[in-house]
Amino acid sequence: MQFYLNGYAPGDPDVVKEALPATVDVLVIGSGPAGALLAAQLSNFPNILTRLVERRSGALQVGQADGIACRTVEMFEAFGLGQKLLREAYWVNETVFWRPSKQDRTRIERTGRVQDTEDGLSEFPHLIVNQARLQQYLLDYMRNSPTRLEASYGLEFVTLKVEPDGEHPVVVTLRDVAKGSETTVRAKYVVGCDGARSGVREAIGAVPRGDFANHAWGVLDMLAVTDFPDIRLKAAIQSADEGNILLIPREGGYMVRLYVDLGDIDPNNREAFRDITQEKVLETARRVLHPYTLDVKSVVWFAVYQVGQRVTDRFDDVPADQLASRLPRVFIAGDACHTHSAKAGQGMNVSMQDTFNLGWKLASVLDGRAGPELLRTYSAERHAIAQGLIDFDKEWSKIMASPPKDPSRPELGGVDPQELQAYFVKSGRYTAGVATHYAPTTVLTAEATHQSLAKGFTIGTRFHSAPVVRLADAKPMHLGHAARADGAWRVYAFADSSGKRLRDLAAYLAESPDSPVRRFTPTGADIDSVIDVRAVFQQGHLDLKVEELPSILMPRKGCFGLVDYEKAYCPDLKNGPDIFDLRGIDRAKGAVVVVRPDQYVSNVLPLDAHDELAAFFGQFLLDRQ
Amino acid sequence: MQFYLNGYAPGDPDVVKEALPATVDVLVIGSGPAGALLAAQLSNFPNILTRLVERRSGALQVGQADGIACRTVEMFEAFGLGQKLLREAYWVNETVFWRPSKQDRTRIERTGRVQDTEDGLSEFPHLIVNQARLQQYLLDYMRNSPTRLEASYGLEFVTLKVEPDGEHPVVVTLRDVAKGSETTVRAKYVVGCDGARSGVREAIGAVPRGDFANHAWGVLDMLAVTDFPDIRLKAAIQSADEGNILLIPREGGYMVRLYVDLGDIDPNNREAFRDITQEKVLETARRVLHPYTLDVKSVVWFAVYQVGQRVTDRFDDVPADQLASRLPRVFIAGDACHTHSAKAGQGMNVSMQDTFNLGWKLASVLDGRAGPELLRTYSAERHAIAQGLIDFDKEWSKIMASPPKDPSRPELGGVDPQELQAYFVKSGRYTAGVATHYAPTTVLTAEATHQSLAKGFTIGTRFHSAPVVRLADAKPMHLGHAARADGAWRVYAFADSSGKRLRDLAAYLAESPDSPVRRFTPTGADIDSVIDVRAVFQQGHLDLKVEELPSILMPRKGCFGLVDYEKAYCPDLKNGPDIFDLRGIDRAKGAVVVVRPDQYVSNVLPLDAHDELAAFFGQFLLDRQ
Ligand SMILES: Cc1cc2nc3c(=O)[nH]c(=O)nc-3n(C[C@H](O)[C@H](O)[C@H](O)COP(=O)(O)OP(=O)(O)OC[C@H]3O[C@@H](n4cnc5c(N)ncnc54)[C@H](O)[C@@H]3O)c2cc1C
Ligand SMILES: Cc1cc2nc3c(=O)[nH]c(=O)nc-3n(C[C@H](O)[C@H](O)[C@H](O)COP(=O)(O)OP(=O)(O)OC[C@H]3O[C@@H](n4cnc5c(N)ncnc54)[C@H](O)[C@@H]3O)c2cc1C
Repeated sequence: MQFYLNGYAPGDPDVVKEALPATVDVLVIGSGPAGALLAAQLSNFPNILTRLVERRSGALQVGQADGIACRTVEMFEAFGLGQKLLREAYWVNETVFWRPSKQDRTRIERTGRVQDTEDGLSEFPHLIVNQARLQQYLLDYMRNSPTRLEASYGLEFVTLKVEPDGEHPVVVTLRDVAKGSETTVRAKYVVGCDGARSGVREAIGAVPRGDFANHAWGVLDMLAVTDFPDIRLKAAIQSADEGNILLIPREGGYMVRLYVDLGDIDPNNREAFRDITQEKVLETARRVLHPYTLDVKSVVWFAVYQVGQRVTDRFDDVPADQLASRLPRVFIAGDACHTHSAKAGQGMNVSMQDTFNLGWKLASVLDGRAGPELLRTYSAERHAIAQGLIDFDKEWSKIMASPPKDPSRPELGGVDPQELQAYFVKSGRYTAGVATHYAPTTVLTAEATHQSLAKGFTIGTRFHSAPVVRLADAKPMHLGHAARADGAWRVYAFADSSGKRLRDLAAYLAESPDSPVRRFTPTGADIDSVIDVRAVFQQGHLDLKVEELPSILMPRKGCFGLVDYEKAYCPDLKNGPDIFDLRGIDRAKGAVVVVRPDQYVSNVLPLDAHDELAAFFGQFLLDRQ
Repeated sequence: MQFYLNGYAPGDPDVVKEALPATVDVLVIGSGPAGALLAAQLSNFPNILTRLVERRSGALQVGQADGIACRTVEMFEAFGLGQKLLREAYWVNETVFWRPSKQDRTRIERTGRVQDTEDGLSEFPHLIVNQARLQQYLLDYMRNSPTRLEASYGLEFVTLKVEPDGEHPVVVTLRDVAKGSETTVRAKYVVGCDGARSGVREAIGAVPRGDFANHAWGVLDMLAVTDFPDIRLKAAIQSADEGNILLIPREGGYMVRLYVDLGDIDPNNREAFRDITQEKVLETARRVLHPYTLDVKSVVWFAVYQVGQRVTDRFDDVPADQLASRLPRVFIAGDACHTHSAKAGQGMNVSMQDTFNLGWKLASVLDGRAGPELLRTYSAERHAIAQGLIDFDKEWSKIMASPPKDPSRPELGGVDPQELQAYFVKSGRYTAGVATHYAPTTVLTAEATHQSLAKGFTIGTRFHSAPVVRLADAKPMHLGHAARADGAWRVYAFADSSGKRLRDLAAYLAESPDSPVRRFTPTGADIDSVIDVRAVFQQGHLDLKVEELPSILMPRKGCFGLVDYEKAYCPDLKNGPDIFDLRGIDRAKGAVVVVRPDQYVSNVLPLDAHDELAAFFGQFLLDRQ
């Protein structure tokens, strides 16, 4: 038995380490939240050969981020993972504020308590769960997908170059971490999800702008006994002179995370915080918490996390002056593009939204459904969002890090606790992840010409789900939860009062040679695989007949040609509210709401705007071959 | 390399088939719903050595029962499996009734439509999912449990005898199905979950009473295309002359089950139905469905299911005349005890309720927490329930199987469709699985002396969960969902108006030497491991201070002595309804609701009935050693 020819490898030599193919469709670098979500999304497409390479020797086990925005749960629901998250995670229901007592400024006291997430902002709560667990969900999803994708660990990105042409123009050099040997893989597309110190970013000459690392936090995950009463509530704690803590209860009922503010970093002495020990951070925490005690039983994870607020100038390999002449082949996502202070809980969430934006675009292009120009929208869309978030983050973390105002010495400045709390409430949409609003600067976001037909589905924002009843089986459910992370567009047709316009639209979509559904669905594919048409009727489900549904709402699918009965919905008149009221749909005229595969509203159109609907899709989808 | 000494075994000879230990605590025979649930429950106890033997060569893959009563979902929630079921299963929201059209009796038409489950009956819906999937959930749970229990397949129960004394008095002979060889295992307890033809039942001389098999159904799981509009609704279909169908939509949106009534069995010709083919059953189905068509694309499972309504005379090995002198060592559960017609959807559900009843009792006795007399209550309780269900089932299936009344010829008899529908509604509590009501005939069910303090928690019925807010983290949740399938009793103390009686009770439970919590919790065990005390306060969660909770509601637990913050609840005043109103709690006096490990209300007591509470537990729990 011969082995180790190509270098020593630990473990059973009979278990052959999976070799990377010489060419792949998409090579994803880095298995953090951004990379894992992208690979999970792509793993769903049987025709797309994806590989996920990761420098670490295995999956992350502990630490890093833990805040899961409502919007992230909405996205996970499309992967079938929403309920799992809800069960395992801590729910951030309320946030409390603590500040120095007026009587005795050496003691902290509770000064405020607010609901964490505004009512109706999302059907899901704000959650807290370890980043490692969240990544594991995605890795499990990949493994169960049609392509049975597994991450390739112990492989480090070294460099890449993009050749001017060829099927697989991106040539990537990877190093086997254990052996030190290098290999080359050719890819159609490469996505650098390789974190804040991204090598892919460097290779494409993109430059992070902003502060490299201007603030440091001691982060501790721990099991402790304390008489601090709000240990199971998210708590922003400001002491008079000892500093600040953000306390985050964690999954499982016992664990808790402390972010202990270590202050700004001296740009001339970036290593200053490296020597800070767990014990020192804990001492600070205890002083801040005075008069409460903190008896730490076990420290599960400790890190000094230094982070600056940065945005990379572009998120793909096409410099500004070549936008017209070149198409992107290499992308970066997540921390490679933007870094946030830990306190706003953005990093992990925004990183996954980046790749949820990119994933379906890559899949559409590789599957031949859309032209490669679509890929230009990624950097355009996500760069603007990142910049907006950083602006918010800067403001937010400045406020969080400022000393509290001393009422007896207002001349010293500082933040008024009421001010902090008010800002917290205002910023709820950002922290919930639902503030993202794509401007109508790309083909994917229409002008708001017909917005008045569906006021609650703002074009450019995420499709805000609402309760409905599924007609065929009378199931009360959320309209948005029918959507899977399958790369398909959703067209929700809300009925007009007579139902005539809806019927005409259904007939057009099913029969007209101009129908976008007919034009853009490849021969042999299920009729809803590119554009998935669903309808919401105005009457209650008992007043509507399944047998009278138009054929586009009862499509025949799969190898047996079975009927899909899950395309027609009614308002939930029993449990309410009525989706037409809740989302401001024009009852006389109805509305068509066009939703992207990543759940953002692209367009709102009249039911009879058949040509406009076709023209909208015609901007980026390819006619079937 | 030598192997096959003890007979040929398929597969890799390096994978050593797990040997059964010579002695076990509990030997469970049969891995159907009853056996799998029992093994799952017992697998939670690290000190109890359980083995699950099954004649089949592996886990069930397809077929058999599929109706999951609300009550079963409630139970699964205690295993952490509720959400998984909800996601995967079909939800039975409404049921429709079809009968011959008055205009043309050769055609069926819809005559009624009802909500399937009465509002507020359970927080969970009625579900449909394959028995094989449900069993797999339990097998997975076992595998993840502290004992990492796996079923031992290919082992058949042959016989047993109970020796008069000894630690492991039950001597069981098992046959290796592949090899034909026999082995002997000694057990403290044996549970026969070996189905309708139970060998364990025979070995203990218990006798099934009733009809062996008086009715036959052709059962088909299939993928089909039809113009029958209610194909995604549970439908009871009566044709004029062609027979009856019960149509059950199944998980996944496409599959459907048909129960085609094949009529009564001639007792002199039990084999008559054996020759019935799938094609013949389908032909009948098509005739019943006229004028609708049924184009079957794939038959997933077909069986002719013959079943009688029977109850075995006793569910353990102690004959009636030895009740006082002997303690049970062998039990039977599930179909071994009772069989039901397929139509009421009881078999699988009641079978699991049997073993959920038995599981905690066995665990308590084996863990030394309760005396073995407790085990007598199993047969006493479950036999009465089985008998009641069979009575219901007989009535129900007679109605379902009767021809519809012909209005033009009332003299021919038959069931009036309105009558059928009315009975269906009335019988909802049975089919939901919440009709079970234990009589005060054992130590486990108290007389309803103080029932008026908590009218909505009827003694002897299952604890009917209600919405609350958890105090420490403000989480809106269901009170009942905090309970795990861990064998512990739950004492829910509902506060009196002043809170004084609740504080006194808490102090008594924590400090008095007579406290049942102190008396019955083994030294070194967590304070809530035998009796888990939780409190529900009257005020909203913002008006109550965590730091003022009595110690029994902030117990220190686990190897680190961490605080468990999940014992105190408040009404959900925001989303409502208030649990005190919903469950009729006496606001002036409060109430103590004592709930068994299998979720049944055992007792309702005044908050100040300290001695009565201790005396109640003293009837069966053992003072700590
Ligand atoms: C040590 C640490 C602590 C953090 N603590 C917090 C915190 O307390 N709170 C908070 O909100 N956020 C924290 N973050 C940030 C948060 O984890 C990120 O915002 C989030 O993970 C971004 O996801 P990502 O996928 O873009 O990048 P990352 O999660 O950083 O993932 C990048 C992945 O790429 C891999 N990789 C890097 N270079 C290469 C290469 N050359 N070849 C192959 N693979 C490579 C890395 O091993 C890593 O797995 C922390 C990050 C780190 C690194
Ligand atoms: C073929 C079939 C079809 C059915 N169809 C329907 C239906 O359509 N609708 C419906 O509501 N209900 C149906 N049932 C009934 C329903 O499945 C039962 O009510 C339910 O499974 C009862 O659970 P149980 O665990 O008590 O018994 P079972 O599920 O019968 O499980 C008994 C287990 O014990 C094993 N076993 C038996 N003898 C031995 C032995 N000597 N040694 C070791 N293991 C043994 C069996 O292999 C089996 O796995 C059907 C049952 C069968 C057998």
